[in-house]
Amino acid sequence: MARQLFELVGSDPARRFSPYCWRSRMALAHKGLDAEIIPWRFTETARLAAHGGKTVPILLDGDAVVTDSWDIALHLERAHPAAAALFQGPPETYRFIAAWTDTVVSAGVARLIVSDIVALLGEADAAYFTESREKRFGMKLTQVTADREARLPEFRASLAPLRRTLGMQPFLGGAQPDYADYIVFGSFMWARVVSPFALLAEDDAVFAWHERLLDLHGGLARAVPAMTA
Amino acid sequence: MARQLFELVGSDPARRFSPYCWRSRMALAHKGLDAEIIPWRFTETARLAAHGGKTVPILLDGDAVVTDSWDIALHLERAHPAAAALFQGPPETYRFIAAWTDTVVSAGVARLIVSDIVALLGEADAAYFTESREKRFGMKLTQVTADREARLPEFRASLAPLRRTLGMQPFLGGAQPDYADYIVFGSFMWARVVSPFALLAEDDAVFAWHERLLDLHGGLARAVPAMTA
Repeated sequence: MARQLFELVGSDPARRFSPYCWRSRMALAHKGLDAEIIPWRFTETARLAAHGGKTVPILLDGDAVVTDSWDIALHLERAHPAAAALFQGPPETYRFIAAWTDTVVSAGVARLIVSDIVALLGEADAAYFTESREKRFGMKLTQVTADREARLPEFRASLAPLRRTLGMQPFLGGAQPDYADYIVFGSFMWARVVSPFALLAEDDAVFAWHERLLDLHGGLARAVPAMTA
Repeated sequence: MARQLFELVGSDPARRFSPYCWRSRMALAHKGLDAEIIPWRFTETARLAAHGGKTVPILLDGDAVVTDSWDIALHLERAHPAAAALFQGPPETYRFIAAWTDTVVSAGVARLIVSDIVALLGEADAAYFTESREKRFGMKLTQVTADREARLPEFRASLAPLRRTLGMQPFLGGAQPDYADYIVFGSFMWARVVSPFALLAEDDAVFAWHERLLDLHGGLARAVPAMTA
């Protein structure tokens, strides 16, 4: 049966920039699975409501409809137990890395690149995005990112736990990547697709890890149009 | 055969304050194992060199000598596979939480409590500790902690990933604690034993988790003399 994944895109459907959608896209590839992309844009709420969801990603997998990237990973693990494991232990033991990614990495990335997103969006989406995010930040999006050069060292310092781990092993999962890697990588793909601002120094162990992730699964992530080299 | 654990103590051998020794002590208890404590003080380097180590903890377990808390956990898991697992997946997947604990939690705790340690130490240890740590921090230890009230909100904010995880499940390990919990808990025991400064607000999910850890394994950690209630 058909497998389809709703993914957030810009006015150009090739611009796939949701960190959570990237988690699911990489999880699918890890399992050796493809899924037709259903491009989705911020203001198309009715198209998700039809499947009982409010946010992307949503996976349509045969008869199954799975909303939320976490549940998609659990679903893929359950449905394809013979393929490489996404979770090498109980999924509960991966909750911390997701929480760290959301509160440290994604929060930090947002403050460095959020204003760049607007240019990728069509008129209605741009208006929705700008209004909702300016409300969240309590300021103009251009103000959020105005001093990003000055704040870059602080962001890079916040990656210290990732950097230290990657000094001991090539992936968070160990010798091979697992869902922990995809969780964190999603936040970097978000930045890569929308912003020309370089987050990582080339001599950083995190940079080398990021390159490895870009190359995984036939270079799936590297093939997507991006704003950084 | 006898099992013994070298643990860092103050002039009073009941003051057990090394975060890494706490990782091993909790790991032993998790496995249902006891180990006689060998109290060790900072300046007794020759006593460790005799076992091929430079730092505590060191575990003497029958014929085995295991230095380093990480290797002690691996040793216990290997030697006692039938007891509750410390690692519910490959140990490599626990490297990140250890890196986060070292770079965020312990680094943050140190800047809040390091000056309190001196009072627990005998004369020679106090001199060694003060000189080596003042060199590390580049200032007097009393200066390091001078504005700790003002920096407490920032420390508490740095625990956001832990807090978020504990909003979803009682332990980092899930429904039950595992070595991830003991890694983080060790840093809080360090503070608890040496300092009257309260790190956690009582309405914090991290506080409730900390209380659960204090109660584990017959209240092992709570029974140790501490500076906070």
